[in-house]
Amino acid sequence: MMMRKLTVSLLSIGVIMTSMHVIAANEPIQPIKPVKPENAELVELGKMLFFDPRLSKSGFISCNSCHNLSMGGTDNIKTSIGHKWQQGPINAPTVLNSSMNLAQFWDGRAKDLKEQAGGPIANPGEMASTHDIAVKVIDSMSKYQAQFKKAFGSDGVDIDRVTTAIAAFEETLVTPGSRFDKWLEGDKNALSKEEQDGYNVFKSSGCTKCHNGPAVGGNSFEKMGVYKPYETKSTAEGRKGVTGKEEDRLHFKVPTLRNVELTYPYFHDGGAATLEEAVDTMAKIQLNKEFSKEEIANVVAFLKTLTGKQPDFKLPILPPSNNSTPRPEPFDK
Amino acid sequence: MMMRKLTVSLLSIGVIMTSMHVIAANEPIQPIKPVKPENAELVELGKMLFFDPRLSKSGFISCNSCHNLSMGGTDNIKTSIGHKWQQGPINAPTVLNSSMNLAQFWDGRAKDLKEQAGGPIANPGEMASTHDIAVKVIDSMSKYQAQFKKAFGSDGVDIDRVTTAIAAFEETLVTPGSRFDKWLEGDKNALSKEEQDGYNVFKSSGCTKCHNGPAVGGNSFEKMGVYKPYETKSTAEGRKGVTGKEEDRLHFKVPTLRNVELTYPYFHDGGAATLEEAVDTMAKIQLNKEFSKEEIANVVAFLKTLTGKQPDFKLPILPPSNNSTPRPEPFDK
Repeated sequence: MMMRKLTVSLLSIGVIMTSMHVIAANEPIQPIKPVKPENAELVELGKMLFFDPRLSKSGFISCNSCHNLSMGGTDNIKTSIGHKWQQGPINAPTVLNSSMNLAQFWDGRAKDLKEQAGGPIANPGEMASTHDIAVKVIDSMSKYQAQFKKAFGSDGVDIDRVTTAIAAFEETLVTPGSRFDKWLEGDKNALSKEEQDGYNVFKSSGCTKCHNGPAVGGNSFEKMGVYKPYETKSTAEGRKGVTGKEEDRLHFKVPTLRNVELTYPYFHDGGAATLEEAVDTMAKIQLNKEFSKEEIANVVAFLKTLTGKQPDFKLPILPPSNNSTPRPEPFDK
Repeated sequence: MMMRKLTVSLLSIGVIMTSMHVIAANEPIQPIKPVKPENAELVELGKMLFFDPRLSKSGFISCNSCHNLSMGGTDNIKTSIGHKWQQGPINAPTVLNSSMNLAQFWDGRAKDLKEQAGGPIANPGEMASTHDIAVKVIDSMSKYQAQFKKAFGSDGVDIDRVTTAIAAFEETLVTPGSRFDKWLEGDKNALSKEEQDGYNVFKSSGCTKCHNGPAVGGNSFEKMGVYKPYETKSTAEGRKGVTGKEEDRLHFKVPTLRNVELTYPYFHDGGAATLEEAVDTMAKIQLNKEFSKEEIANVVAFLKTLTGKQPDFKLPILPPSNNSTPRPEPFDK
């Protein structure tokens, strides 16, 4: 009797697993897989650096200030606040699942997370430090020195190692386990009818042409405003700034829609405050479609099922500066 | 044989415990006791609020911005950065062990942590929101509403409950387990000779007249500059601003020295960058003493033994704003 039950159970599991596989394979969106970091010490170091505001000139702004891991890896404001409260030119993209992007920044000017991580530290409008000072700050602390040794297997702190560690931490920031992924994996009850209807609209209207793959985006650069121009005060040129080609003006990296409920406001200028507004605008200018209120509500309901498991770790405790640590300069002297 | 061993062991424990008791009782400093929160849901709510930058007008500044729990509960800059990068008038005191203070703020104008917590939220130079807007923001989110219900046993979000929760979280931020406390509790090997010498200088010179009790401070208001005036550009008046009495000018709450290695720079104006400088200045202006280099080094070595167990919890994940949440206003329109 027990043997028979076991056999039946195993058979059922087999059926579920086969159907799981089939469903995901036929869909334009694939589930996110959990990441198992190879080098836990490197990830721990990267986490410390990600939270350390001493990488900024003021000593006040860390990576986590604008990519706040309590808030979907964003700052939830239109454009970020930089050194001395400078207004940033563009909306801070989420750091969650950012390892899946084909390139980093809205214009893709950094080829990977490591290259990206060095940007804001030395950008006068963001953290406003220099790589040289940032390295001197970190290298002044014996606890950091020891963690670099554990992470890299040898002594030494330099900007290459700093950004390698931050990138290694960021690569762990994937968000599996969303309700949509459970549905993809065969749990038909994971989505409501409204949410499934929304997904069907999302697919049949052409949203998945750009928003596809495990990250539901991040795979291509596309023009913002295909059928109608996008109205904005932002002067961001997009991909043109990288390639120099006029045809790349207003081409931006398609953002991931994973955790999109958490990453408001939307678009490169943060111009859409709500998901409803974002969906409506996208339909109009990218697809030349007018969604009904119900369609918008259903697509939004679907999008909210893309929220996955959020970062789950202890607040890092940072080593204190000492008498040889360069001091922050938050204000003019 | 085993019985005898056990008896001997129990006797040894008895001896250790008795000596522990005696040592702490004879000293001007007592060990910090761990805190067991009565209401875990209230503490959890307070933690979320402490990390939520939406309590500020900009959506960028949280309690944790200036009382950074990764960095000793301070911002480690001379005076804090407020809304629109305004320069604060005074050094941010550590939130660690702040429940032991006789009152809050350098001038003691808040009688307790609950009263303190409401201050920065509505201070135009700090978080620059209003209690009304802050409550509307928090009350707009069903996850917060549910957490308030769990914490207080009934529905409702108001500023009284917001500050009660933040204070309840802050009351958990005590730091037992320092090497000095281990020494107080009878572990004679917990301090080096240099550190014990430093403690003896600290006691015999009169530092413990003000820096005493479990928090090594926080028990009284004292004049900054007893024997010689303290030179500063700060216009902070101290206790006079609260009492209106001229004799209270430059009287400040004695800061805790717990975790003082982490809470640089020192004094109400952040004027002392290093512990050596702070100890030297205190000796001169408060005690009319000139410490030798060795005495300063030993006192500093002792002070570094006051670093206790730092906050140990998971980064809180905050509920997302929704279409009815008032939006932050980081920049002029």
